[in-house]
Amino acid sequence: MKRSKLVTDKDGWSTVSSETNFANPFLEVVTEKVKTPSNSEARTWTTIRRKAAVVIAPMTGDGKFLLIKEERIPIRAAIWSMPAGQIDNHEAGDEEIKKIALKELHEETGYDLAPAGEIVPLGYFFTSAGLTDEHCYFFFVRPVQKAPKHNREEGEAILECRAVGMDELWQMIAEGDIRDSNTLAICARLAARGFISLDAR
Amino acid sequence: MKRSKLVTDKDGWSTVSSETNFANPFLEVVTEKVKTPSNSEARTWTTIRRKAAVVIAPMTGDGKFLLIKEERIPIRAAIWSMPAGQIDNHEAGDEEIKKIALKELHEETGYDLAPAGEIVPLGYFFTSAGLTDEHCYFFFVRPVQKAPKHNREEGEAILECRAVGMDELWQMIAEGDIRDSNTLAICARLAARGFISLDAR
Repeated sequence: MKRSKLVTDKDGWSTVSSETNFANPFLEVVTEKVKTPSNSEARTWTTIRRKAAVVIAPMTGDGKFLLIKEERIPIRAAIWSMPAGQIDNHEAGDEEIKKIALKELHEETGYDLAPAGEIVPLGYFFTSAGLTDEHCYFFFVRPVQKAPKHNREEGEAILECRAVGMDELWQMIAEGDIRDSNTLAICARLAARGFISLDAR
Repeated sequence: MKRSKLVTDKDGWSTVSSETNFANPFLEVVTEKVKTPSNSEARTWTTIRRKAAVVIAPMTGDGKFLLIKEERIPIRAAIWSMPAGQIDNHEAGDEEIKKIALKELHEETGYDLAPAGEIVPLGYFFTSAGLTDEHCYFFFVRPVQKAPKHNREEGEAILECRAVGMDELWQMIAEGDIRDSNTLAICARLAARGFISLDAR
């Protein structure tokens, strides 16, 4: 698996040795000896390499957010989240990543960006920095509108899609109905950037 | 690796087969065939099993949050986050998990819960529900005070610890200086529960 341009040896980081413990098309397990900027003695660490992803916060014309409920095998549960998907091309540039975000939005919700709408990049985050190089790029997309025809992706396990108001979104976070990393993280970024307010809470 | 009580086959989920691809003391890679409630045909999925963890939002007497800057080998970077640590005993109950949270707080920041302080459980979240069963329990701890003596844990790579005001916390989230899953997620939960406000933003 090619490593993302975001996670590379530089600024005092160097990989002394790397052994691949397991690999399939979805992930790679590597045990590495790595020198870090603060320590000249290399540390041994096992890392899961996984593709980067996009996470989309889709807002409808009346200020609601679209959530999907999806069965997730690793946690043996169906949970609510904002739409997301992986980036297959590790060299994808900004425009390609935006296109992937809009494609995932369509496939997972059946909604598209409205003609006069905007797609606002909100940076990225690391899902579990002690375990994996996985990182997800955030996009705020508004307004979205129902597509004439919904082209679903094969093999998805999405059970429902619904629009929730700001008050319900905060309530779902408060009560743990939203317990998905991507969704909690993009909500923090949206709040910090002033795109959602806590007034409705 | 024993599976957490939170992630088990029930309510229509069942594991048809499970093959361990790799295991070390820190993680286990399993490829499983799993039947889900929505589909009688089993799906094949590779999951990383990892211990559950605690994430602590420590607030000082003057309303600041403690952040640590830690070198994280999987992402080849040192990033800001709230303190966190793994739960070694997969059968740990609520009280034991709280104790682990306070122990991690001490080791990673040198601060302890003040005598009249409180530790507020804020539920949990999944770090990457399509990849791993890893989940983290949130605790809001206030007020915290500097311990007379700081007993550090061996082998940690924490470079700095500092207290930031609410305004700076939101700014760091907005600008991507905070891009760690645990920290973004606990901030969303804290905001939703009314423990932090956006006024300072």
